[in-house]
Amino acid sequence: MAKVKGISKKAKAAHLEKLKKYMIVLQYLGTKYHGWQIQSGQITVQGVLRDALTTLAGIPVQISGASRTDSGVHALGQVAHLWFPEKETIPDLRKALNAILPRDIRVLRLERVPGHFHAQKSARKKRYEYRIFNGPVLPPFLYGRVCHIVHPLNFSEMQRGTELLVGTHDFSGFAAATTSAQNRVREISHSEFTKRGRHLVYRVEGSGFLHHMVRNIVGTLLEVGLEKRPYTDVTSILESADRRNAGVTAVPEGLYLVRIWY
Amino acid sequence: MAKVKGISKKAKAAHLEKLKKYMIVLQYLGTKYHGWQIQSGQITVQGVLRDALTTLAGIPVQISGASRTDSGVHALGQVAHLWFPEKETIPDLRKALNAILPRDIRVLRLERVPGHFHAQKSARKKRYEYRIFNGPVLPPFLYGRVCHIVHPLNFSEMQRGTELLVGTHDFSGFAAATTSAQNRVREISHSEFTKRGRHLVYRVEGSGFLHHMVRNIVGTLLEVGLEKRPYTDVTSILESADRRNAGVTAVPEGLYLVRIWY
Repeated sequence: MAKVKGISKKAKAAHLEKLKKYMIVLQYLGTKYHGWQIQSGQITVQGVLRDALTTLAGIPVQISGASRTDSGVHALGQVAHLWFPEKETIPDLRKALNAILPRDIRVLRLERVPGHFHAQKSARKKRYEYRIFNGPVLPPFLYGRVCHIVHPLNFSEMQRGTELLVGTHDFSGFAAATTSAQNRVREISHSEFTKRGRHLVYRVEGSGFLHHMVRNIVGTLLEVGLEKRPYTDVTSILESADRRNAGVTAVPEGLYLVRIWY
Repeated sequence: MAKVKGISKKAKAAHLEKLKKYMIVLQYLGTKYHGWQIQSGQITVQGVLRDALTTLAGIPVQISGASRTDSGVHALGQVAHLWFPEKETIPDLRKALNAILPRDIRVLRLERVPGHFHAQKSARKKRYEYRIFNGPVLPPFLYGRVCHIVHPLNFSEMQRGTELLVGTHDFSGFAAATTSAQNRVREISHSEFTKRGRHLVYRVEGSGFLHHMVRNIVGTLLEVGLEKRPYTDVTSILESADRRNAGVTAVPEGLYLVRIWY
């Protein structure tokens, strides 16, 4: 529920009565942002959205996202929920939001949702993509939007490693050392590398993802592709449940939060 | 031939003897540049390339491009020629160039060419693309890289107009009013609009293009797509040879110089 400050209790109660719950689907280019999550002294996607919504509502608005994307990570389909005064018509509100938001954040959809909807807790499944350009010269149009690997990657070895991730596993070995999650068991329903010329895409879907999990998986698969380690290491990392066995965290600019299912 | 200043005549002659002619194929994101052509007080693609080449050569290097792309226009395959000291090996020189160039300019190919090769005068055919996004919300990833049209475009009417451009015509009606070209007859061998969802691409190939010609053609076709004028206006504009009859010049950020044939 939005916090309402600086107005009388009566006015506050009247406001809260009129607040309705909405969900938004949004895209952003993460390049200029210090990630999703509000942090003091940093420009974040959540912070910019909160300020825009607050401007439009005339009262403080809180917004809660499904996924805390890191600094430099992009979104094709981030989802968030918020409480907002009822008076606004939905298409006009989306238009007004996009009119005041910077061009690298766009609201695609805005919908009324029931009060029990929660962007993060109600999510059933998420899809991420990790994009790689494998070639000597990175096209200028892809700078900041892919991970650039100059040396040729052994694609079929990477694919073999990819398949070993499908299923329900303890993903501690691929989680950030600093992750606070107690339960690190997650279910990966889809894990696949595709290739079109020099463009590689890793697509992964699952019930949930630990901090840095996708980037640590990709970092490990890149070491497989560079023939620095065998693809079977994926299984030993899962079994060891020890982050120190996995590869280097892949750069954030290749990662896209693609879609969230409810 | 590169101008060599500040060294003795003898040293100059020795230098010039060792200069060889090269051609480069390059890509750039035009967003930050005041176009291709060197202009005092402006950051241009040609200027940035000249400075990088001069740094590597240790003597002033001149570079001459095939096409003077305007401010904000992009290139997937701009071609230029230059004279450069022979000592350098070609793959190392390309690498060294890309290492000191900004990320939004990349040299894809670098080759030795015979002395009579001229990037602009030797060109037989050029291909341009003009990219349009037709929908209410522009994805943040396309900002500065397409022309955004919110109102639905009548695509089949635009296609009809497109076909009328094929052939040899006096293109005065589609040239910038300020164009200095005496002969304005050009041959268009290919002119086609394609559509994939909300993404429209106009692809045009021809022997040569007058200043603003592609953008004036697209501007006119957009007015056809918005049903502000009939597609047959394309023929009347060609016949009138009067710029005042054509549509508004389409924005530069949708235009890409794609390829040049020699």
